[in-house]
Order: sequence, then structure tokens, then C-alpha cells
Amino acid sequence: MSIENAYYTHEFHGDFELVGIGRLELEEGGVIDDCQLAIATFGTLNDAKDNAIVVPTWYSGTHQIWRDAYIGSDHALNPDEWFIVSINQIGNGLSTSPHNAPDAISMSKFPDVRIGDDVVAQERLMREHFGVERLALVVGGSMGAQQTYEWAVRFPDQVARAAPIAGTAHNTPHDFLFTRTLMETITCDPGWSDGEYKSSDDVVAGLERHARMWGVMGFSTEFWKQEVWRALDFDSMEAFLEGFLQPYFTAMDPNDLLTMAWKWQRGDVARHTDGDLAAALGRITAKTFVMPIDEDMFFPVRDCAAEQALIAGSELRVVEDVLGHLGLFAVSPDYMPQIDRHLGELLAADG
Amino acid sequence: MSIENAYYTHEFHGDFELVGIGRLELEEGGVIDDCQLAIATFGTLNDAKDNAIVVPTWYSGTHQIWRDAYIGSDHALNPDEWFIVSINQIGNGLSTSPHNAPDAISMSKFPDVRIGDDVVAQERLMREHFGVERLALVVGGSMGAQQTYEWAVRFPDQVARAAPIAGTAHNTPHDFLFTRTLMETITCDPGWSDGEYKSSDDVVAGLERHARMWGVMGFSTEFWKQEVWRALDFDSMEAFLEGFLQPYFTAMDPNDLLTMAWKWQRGDVARHTDGDLAAALGRITAKTFVMPIDEDMFFPVRDCAAEQALIAGSELRVVEDVLGHLGLFAVSPDYMPQIDRHLGELLAADG
Repeated sequence: MSIENAYYTHEFHGDFELVGIGRLELEEGGVIDDCQLAIATFGTLNDAKDNAIVVPTWYSGTHQIWRDAYIGSDHALNPDEWFIVSINQIGNGLSTSPHNAPDAISMSKFPDVRIGDDVVAQERLMREHFGVERLALVVGGSMGAQQTYEWAVRFPDQVARAAPIAGTAHNTPHDFLFTRTLMETITCDPGWSDGEYKSSDDVVAGLERHARMWGVMGFSTEFWKQEVWRALDFDSMEAFLEGFLQPYFTAMDPNDLLTMAWKWQRGDVARHTDGDLAAALGRITAKTFVMPIDEDMFFPVRDCAAEQALIAGSELRVVEDVLGHLGLFAVSPDYMPQIDRHLGELLAADG
Repeated sequence: MSIENAYYTHEFHGDFELVGIGRLELEEGGVIDDCQLAIATFGTLNDAKDNAIVVPTWYSGTHQIWRDAYIGSDHALNPDEWFIVSINQIGNGLSTSPHNAPDAISMSKFPDVRIGDDVVAQERLMREHFGVERLALVVGGSMGAQQTYEWAVRFPDQVARAAPIAGTAHNTPHDFLFTRTLMETITCDPGWSDGEYKSSDDVVAGLERHARMWGVMGFSTEFWKQEVWRALDFDSMEAFLEGFLQPYFTAMDPNDLLTMAWKWQRGDVARHTDGDLAAALGRITAKTFVMPIDEDMFFPVRDCAAEQALIAGSELRVVEDVLGHLGLFAVSPDYMPQIDRHLGELLAADG
């Protein structure tokens, strides 16, 4: 049975719309009978229907951060020019997810979902709901980068430009292991009850451990050493953990996080080419900017650069941010100017 | 009440000797009435008593790895020339530790121990038991590096040379947080029972999580990507975890690990100088080689280099090893030649 969670509401997330894309048969064999995608749109689709940008979401994230930090008339993702559709990934708590799914697939019964399932659902949404056959850009961070790569490999003719930020096309073994430790912070909690807890509050200890694990890998060693959290108005590392990272994650649903984590672990465009990553990335025709963050502890630049080298006509655009991976939160004043510069140049290039 | 643990025996650790150094009053206020240090010696103390080398141990480690990998007539740590004393740190399971301590301080009752307590105990051992007033070298890795720095700052006149490998003088906030997540893998296990488990087997799930967390931070992202574990005769990442990392940690005592982790979190030579790290490191008169490992995820080169810059006459000697921090296990064929070259040059230098 689905459960209530106040975090996944309009009160916390502002305007978004649920769009049913129908029955979604999943790569792992499961089915979501009535798959609902939560989307937020910005700007207007032009008559030629060639100004659409898709923004998939990252682990634990929603359209909210994109709306608040990345999209606006002062940004490259300018709704005065582009029709921007941020699509919440399956399992993120707003789209169909374990905690809000119909009884038949709720909570521990939720099926395994892959990155490819999300992208198939997103493509159907854009084509059937908006009549968009080709995207001007797909841009996403982290798991959003995984979906971006999947779009560009699976539907090469439908993606003019791609900007994977701080993520990879083929998930690394280190990331698989890191994600496993994230999952274990939750599943080792007796309150998790094999996914059949009555409230996410039952799993608060696990979710707090989860947050601290993000503290170890999500930020850089320099973030902590330089006490960058002071810029966020905290006066100790502990206060930052208790006032920022822990509340961020304890608001969320454990099964939803686990669904996303399982998906993250297995992101791999080479599934389209019998495991040949070069062949998969060789299918990309989108003009692609690969944008790792220099201090990222688990999507290091060299992993992203190795993939970029396999994409014809692509460019490596390294984003400098001492925050590391969670630079994606766009709290550094130097972060968005870099993102805007790169995305601006990409959008100005021929797709 | 103390408990049995087959790992901390001569069967697993070969020859070592327990030497009582008497009552040890601890910095945090506790007392170990009859502190026993487990030591292994190699070579002969010369008449001048000026050829002694102290080797403290790292987190989870013992004298064993030093004996098997670092010490020998084919190494810089050559017992034909030097009198080498590897001293197991308090809490490591061989020296006085929670699982083997007298009832009054056993298990959850074990007092908090600091790096400084170890070094005070070690200095007393060397002076009173061996009559050694000045060491030719202190060399240690990771927590052994913490103890090496503590020796050089606390007893500057008694240390001719120092070689901290893959560790810092002032523990970083990132390391504090990482260590906290390590501790939580154990303490969140219901079998831990607030430290009063009947057998470490009760905590095996926690110890396995602990091992996997080491997999995330102990090795480098490249170690996993390059599948370096194949050189250790495993045929999958999972087999390596189950056949190497997990058995390594599940053999150990949870309280012992927690005692060492608490100590590691708080390593800081600046305690001698009211928090002034430059002043503390400025006290060092030992000829010092600071030896970080290039791929270390949690003692990164830049943290070690920043400390090295504060030590007069010191040199930064970066060790290259794709294994990252756990390169300390000396499994890469290129690792020991580097260590031997650096330590050989250090031992040949005026102390």
C-alpha cells in the first residue's frame, strides 16, 4: 500500500504536472501499467517544434533544483527562447515511485527500473504529449547525465545536442560499489522492514547515515578542509550535516531512493551494442559537451574524458568547483556562470 | 568480560612478544593499569643503541604486514643493519585492546585512547625496556603516519628521521567524516549490542559493510576500473570483496576497530601548540620524508604536501600506486621498490 510523504507535494515542489504515458514494459520484465511522469515546463514550444529541451533529474533530485538554479531568462536555459521540459525520473517520488504506486507494485513490490526505461518513457511523452520528434538539447547531471547519454545513443536522430554533466555513459565499478554502500545505510536499518515500513520516519537513522555517506563522497576533501559550508551560513561541520545534508535526505522515501540507486548502479549505454562502449558512443550524432566537475570524487574527470574521446565531434568541458559532485546544487557563485557559458556555446552550435 | 578471538593469536600473527609498560594514564582521563604492548623485533640493537627503528601500525593492521612485506635483508628496513621494533598500537587486538582487556576496562568499558597515548607508551617501551634514547627512524603508514608525526613533534630530540607514509599530522575533517561512516557500519548492527556482543560473529553483517566501505575509499576509482584485483587471482569484483576484503575485516574485533577509529579521527599534533599546526610541525628536527600515495582517496597528496611544506628540511616523496591508500598492503610490484628507494635515501641521510 502506498504511503503519504509530505515532501513529494506541490507545497515543497511548486508547480508540476502529472502526465500519464500509459503502460510501460520494463527492461527487467516488470510492468508499470499506468506510468505517470511528473513534469515541469518552462517557455513555449514554437510552431516548428524544434526548440524543446529535455532535462532529466538526478538521484534524489527533482525538477525543483533545475527550476530554481539553472533555468531562467538570465541563464542559457532561457525559457524566452527554449521550451524546457524537466522530467522527473521514475522512482524519484514525484513520478511513479514505490511510495506512491498502486498497491500491486507499491513499496517492496516496485519493479526494477533501468535508465533505458526512463528514456523510453520520456521519448514517448515528448512525442505523444507534445508532438516533439527531435530535441534541441538533452542536459542532465549525474543520473541525469546517464539519461542524457541514453537518449543520445538510443535515439540518435532525435537529439541535436547533449550535455551530460558530472556523470558517465557506462557506470563504473567504483560507482557501483559506492552506491551499494549508500543502499546499505538504509537496508541495514531494522526500521526499513524489507521495504514495508509504515512511514519513512521509521527509517530516519538509516536516512541520516545515508546523508553522511553523501558527505564523504558527494563533496570533495577540499570542500571540508576549506570549510566551504561556512558560505552556506553554518558554523560547524556538524551543524552543516544536521542542518543541510541530513534533513535533505530524511525527508525522502527510502524505497524511492533504493529504486533510483539500483538504476544508477546499472546505467550503461553499451547494453545497446553487446557491451561495446565505443560502438555505443559511436552512435551518437548529437553535438556533445561532456562536462565533468574537476573535484568530483566518484565521477572523476578521467572517467568522463575517456568516454568523451569516443564521441565524434564532442568536447570536454571541465567545470571547476571545489564542492565536487554536489557542485550540481549550484551553490558556488562560480558554478552557474561556467554552466551557462558551456550550454550557451552548445546551444549556439549546429546540432 | 574479555572475549576470545582466534585472529589475534600467534597462529595468525607469528612471533610477537607482550611487554608490559605499566600504568598508562590517558589524555582523555582514563587509565590502563597494566598496558601491554605487543611488539615484534627484527635485527640486533648495537652497543651504541643508535640503530633502532620504530614502526607503529595502522588501522586494522599489525606488525604482520611490516614483517612480511617491508622488513628484510632485501629492503631498506634491513635487520642486518637496523634494530627494528614494530609496535602494535593500543586497541589493535594484539596490544591491550577492548576485546582482551581486564574486565574493568573490557569491551564497551574500554577508555578512549589517543595517538599521543600510544606514542607515550612507545617511548617508555623503547627507553625503559630497550634503553634506547634516540631513534634512527620512525616510519609508519596511515595511522602509523599519525604516530610517526606525533613522535617527531612530541619528542623532537629523540627522533633522527621520520617517514610518515599515506597519513597526516592533523586529521582532516573529510577523514573524520569518512571514519564516522566506517564506525557506523558497525554500530548500526543490532548484533553490536552497544559493544557487549558475545562474539564478533554477532556483528558479521556490520563488519562486512565495513569492508565494503573500505572498498569505496581504500582503493582508487582506477583500481576498480582497471580490475587490478585480477592480479590477486580473483575473477570478479564480487569475488574479490568476498574473498579478500570481507574476510580481512570479519576476522577482527568490532570494539577494537572502533577504538582505533576514534583515535584516528582525532589525530592532531597541533594539540601540543594550542591548535597551531605550523608551530607544531616547526618543532620537528627529524629529517623527514613525507610520502603520500598519489591515488589515495582520503589522504590526498595535497593534504600531505601542505603539511610537508611546514617541516624544515623535509622532502615530499610521492609514491605512485593505482591501488590508492591500500597500496600500503604492498601488493603492487612497483610499490616496495619505491618505498625502499625513499627509505634507503632517508636512512643514508644525516639524521
